[in-house]
Amino acid sequence: MTLLPAAPPKVVEEIAAFGRFAASRGWVPATSGNFSCRIDEFRAAVTRSGIDKGAIGPGDVAMLAIDGNVPAGMSAETPLHLALYRDDPAIGAVFHVHTVAGTVLSRREEPAGCVRTDGYEMHKSIGLTTHESTVEIPILPNDQDTVWLAGEVSRRIGRAAPVPGFLLAGHGLYAWGATAADARRHVEGLEFLLACHLEERRLR
Amino acid sequence: MTLLPAAPPKVVEEIAAFGRFAASRGWVPATSGNFSCRIDEFRAAVTRSGIDKGAIGPGDVAMLAIDGNVPAGMSAETPLHLALYRDDPAIGAVFHVHTVAGTVLSRREEPAGCVRTDGYEMHKSIGLTTHESTVEIPILPNDQDTVWLAGEVSRRIGRAAPVPGFLLAGHGLYAWGATAADARRHVEGLEFLLACHLEERRLR
Amino acid sequence: MTLLPAAPPKVVEEIAAFGRFAASRGWVPATSGNFSCRIDEFRAAVTRSGIDKGAIGPGDVAMLAIDGNVPAGMSAETPLHLALYRDDPAIGAVFHVHTVAGTVLSRREEPAGCVRTDGYEMHKSIGLTTHESTVEIPILPNDQDTVWLAGEVSRRIGRAAPVPGFLLAGHGLYAWGATAADARRHVEGLEFLLACHLEERRLR
Amino acid sequence: MTLLPAAPPKVVEEIAAFGRFAASRGWVPATSGNFSCRIDEFRAAVTRSGIDKGAIGPGDVAMLAIDGNVPAGMSAETPLHLALYRDDPAIGAVFHVHTVAGTVLSRREEPAGCVRTDGYEMHKSIGLTTHESTVEIPILPNDQDTVWLAGEVSRRIGRAAPVPGFLLAGHGLYAWGATAADARRHVEGLEFLLACHLEERRLR
Repeated sequence: MTLLPAAPPKVVEEIAAFGRFAASRGWVPATSGNFSCRIDEFRAAVTRSGIDKGAIGPGDVAMLAIDGNVPAGMSAETPLHLALYRDDPAIGAVFHVHTVAGTVLSRREEPAGCVRTDGYEMHKSIGLTTHESTVEIPILPNDQDTVWLAGEVSRRIGRAAPVPGFLLAGHGLYAWGATAADARRHVEGLEFLLACHLEERRLR
Repeated sequence: MTLLPAAPPKVVEEIAAFGRFAASRGWVPATSGNFSCRIDEFRAAVTRSGIDKGAIGPGDVAMLAIDGNVPAGMSAETPLHLALYRDDPAIGAVFHVHTVAGTVLSRREEPAGCVRTDGYEMHKSIGLTTHESTVEIPILPNDQDTVWLAGEVSRRIGRAAPVPGFLLAGHGLYAWGATAADARRHVEGLEFLLACHLEERRLR
Repeated sequence: MTLLPAAPPKVVEEIAAFGRFAASRGWVPATSGNFSCRIDEFRAAVTRSGIDKGAIGPGDVAMLAIDGNVPAGMSAETPLHLALYRDDPAIGAVFHVHTVAGTVLSRREEPAGCVRTDGYEMHKSIGLTTHESTVEIPILPNDQDTVWLAGEVSRRIGRAAPVPGFLLAGHGLYAWGATAADARRHVEGLEFLLACHLEERRLR
Repeated sequence: MTLLPAAPPKVVEEIAAFGRFAASRGWVPATSGNFSCRIDEFRAAVTRSGIDKGAIGPGDVAMLAIDGNVPAGMSAETPLHLALYRDDPAIGAVFHVHTVAGTVLSRREEPAGCVRTDGYEMHKSIGLTTHESTVEIPILPNDQDTVWLAGEVSRRIGRAAPVPGFLLAGHGLYAWGATAADARRHVEGLEFLLACHLEERRLR
């Protein structure tokens, strides 16, 4: 494994703070999920594989070249993070979590290709200016070939996506933003929409 | 932006304490919600826009004139808070949260104009003297024109409302009380009624 | 109001510890619930009315005569606590909470007079020796005349009840035990049974 | 009771840390659940009976001979832990919890003999290499004769089981791993699968 420089302490703390929040909500069970923050045009800090996301320390975050290969010890999903940074220079942080509502809906509504919500005030948390709008959270197929999957992300999501997140079917939610605070707000906003949508489906 | 005096530390702490509680319950996702306390006949302290409601500090709360305009940096929903203080001198605190049960029911039962509950002991938490009573939590339409919406609140809710709260459709719950403790008790009591009512609807 | 001696610090802390636990679970919303511990044959320590059950301090617990009248400032439900201590000398602590599952089932199954569960290992937490058993959690009608209601508790529950708890319809769960630890175990065991039973009803 | 040596502090802390986590999730209600870690080929540290699993201290964990008898003061389920260590030398920790989803599904799907899940990314948390797989979590009958039950565990689970856990019908989840961290990951992964599966059953 290439010797990598340590991530800046401020960035490690931003990632660790989101990890503590996500763990308190039960959104990163079984060491699942992974988080990253852009350092600059060329580099990003990414969580290593297999760590408890509720107790991230300096040794749990690695610095990677956005255009480079993924070194050993990193999550298999690292290519998805790097593809998002490559494709959209406005993205500063990417957070991936596993929630029950997101996982169930990503399977149930995969044939439709998205989870569609209408009329929620919470649409404003992901950048819309009014609740009088429709949000389509894309559902991509899951695949263990994450280099192929990163290509799908580039093809389907690309730059300036209308919704700052997508679901992988049977897998979980990716969301991003210009800053770690924006990415967290988008994770929370999308998860709230998914939780409400699942409740509404139960009432049918 | 007009230079505003700082809110008294005791009031900031009352608002921050409710924020920590609401965040621990998951009721203010994605920086949603906003909270206020009346200072006197003319002024109220109101949370600024876009802040993490689980970590409110002195800089996150602004002092506003109840009869004045809403300065920049405040939430678009500030006019609703001010209308409640103007209309009912007995109101000392207003808390607005986004819960899954409240949001789902506010959409599902909007045609009825209210969520109606019967026979719960929890009715006593919102000022009734017996469970042998009916509670109607009004559902108002949501609107991005919050000055118009504040007018609707004045028209529909007004002074001495029988229930100390209402739902905005697809949006969330407003509740109030003479003190911050009363407003918190009303938020908790109404949310419990909404959670029970949603469970009962699932069993149908 | 009669001047009452303070409750022993150890008893206050036992009650406060249960209160913190119950509040963390969301089982005492809106200052609901009340808790008590027997001091001796003649006296019990009981929480005062209207306090935040997650932050109980020495001033929030009063000493009462088990055979005496209920002084001002005490919860209207105090007579139910005292009746349980009078009727069964083996009872050392009584905890009353408001949970969503208990409230919904207490309304839905009131016509049957009880919530009946079969075959759960959790039956052992409330004193049974095997899961091959049936538990019937009694449902009593709710009533604002708590002196009358205390009489119903004496008549329906009495000494050495087979299940250490009951539901008040539309109101909540009472449970008790020889010690505060036993009463807490019974609250937790009964609430788990109620939560499982409600899930099973949803699947029908 | 035989005088037993104390468990090593590091092992007590590993068990206590899992206990705090499980209690925070509500997975060990009413002092239910029990946890153990292997010390070496011959001995294991096991939690004593009837303790609060969220506050485990040195006196709450006993050292037992894996091939020996179960001394007084230990949980009736201790034989199941010892059987797992005897049958599979690769097992280093065994955690048993009571969750609502696991309990409900263990009853509802007992006729099928297992809970079967397909296509979840979370399958990878329990040792599979791809989501394109089927997981069958065995459901064993519950029995108060835990020596007989331990024999069933040996017969049905044995060495190198394809899934590192099983359900006891109406009772709860057992899961294990080479280390305490692995066993926790397996508990979390299996519980997530059970929670998702229960949600999907509700949507049918």
